[in-house]
Amino acid sequence: MDVFEAVRTILAVRSYRDDPVPEALVQRIVESGRLTASARNAQPWHFIMVSDRATLGQLGALVPTGPYIGQAALAIVVAIQRTPFAVSDASRAIQSMMLVAWADGVGSNWAGFVGGLRAVGDLLNVPSDMDVLAVLPFGFPAVPVGQGKKGRKPLSEVASRERFGQPF
Amino acid sequence: MDVFEAVRTILAVRSYRDDPVPEALVQRIVESGRLTASARNAQPWHFIMVSDRATLGQLGALVPTGPYIGQAALAIVVAIQRTPFAVSDASRAIQSMMLVAWADGVGSNWAGFVGGLRAVGDLLNVPSDMDVLAVLPFGFPAVPVGQGKKGRKPLSEVASRERFGQPF
Repeated sequence: MDVFEAVRTILAVRSYRDDPVPEALVQRIVESGRLTASARNAQPWHFIMVSDRATLGQLGALVPTGPYIGQAALAIVVAIQRTPFAVSDASRAIQSMMLVAWADGVGSNWAGFVGGLRAVGDLLNVPSDMDVLAVLPFGFPAVPVGQGKKGRKPLSEVASRERFGQPF
Repeated sequence: MDVFEAVRTILAVRSYRDDPVPEALVQRIVESGRLTASARNAQPWHFIMVSDRATLGQLGALVPTGPYIGQAALAIVVAIQRTPFAVSDASRAIQSMMLVAWADGVGSNWAGFVGGLRAVGDLLNVPSDMDVLAVLPFGFPAVPVGQGKKGRKPLSEVASRERFGQPF
């Protein structure tokens, strides 16, 4: 799928079919995270691929906003170092991974955020000097997804030309 | 260009041809930022498209790591609200924009980071309750770019299965 088409159509998916995410796609997804650019090429991230059903259930129980993780075919837990640019760098890697999955028909959603996820780190043996930034469940959407209709602010509110506030 | 191919091949570009970025592509780039997902759909961002040559030169002088901004055809200055997820959300939008540009042959690079960029905000009339997160110069690469060879840690260092440290 073309990049802009992926960006235009991607939607959060919180309900998944039982089918596993094909291993070749899992490889491409994690490779997409690994290859993403980061400040000073620090790559301050670690990706844990979880497909064990019991562990997925535990993740669903631990992430307040994400009980649906328990029904996902796969979850990628993103751990980061405690460095100034790690949140930003890993957020870019997450975007790469979600777009690559979407291009092959696999939906996802960002569940959880750094701070409340120490229990997830403990469950997965994440070293105590790293934080869990996100739990990303992946799976084929259980229901057909729409045409990428998103509720977003109009361009006039989020974009300007040359100076802030000059119409785009 | 296919999404994974874009993620795999994208490289930082710091030297640009004089050709402008076609207006249709500028529109797609900013649309890609606007459409990106954000925590609670807050969209805590604002994109300022700068193509005025004098302003580009001033940006190049103000960003310590980015004198080459002065030679870019376009710069997008990303301003964010001071909310907990704004850095993360805007980083995802930046990744969307860079990948969409790259798919059409236009290179970019993340220059500057929140904290040192108040002078850029002042130059562009960014409200004092927002921060400048990034200045993104865009342009067609001045020299042919390589085949996406990147210096990255091996998969074994950045990925695990089921638990941190179990081989991927």
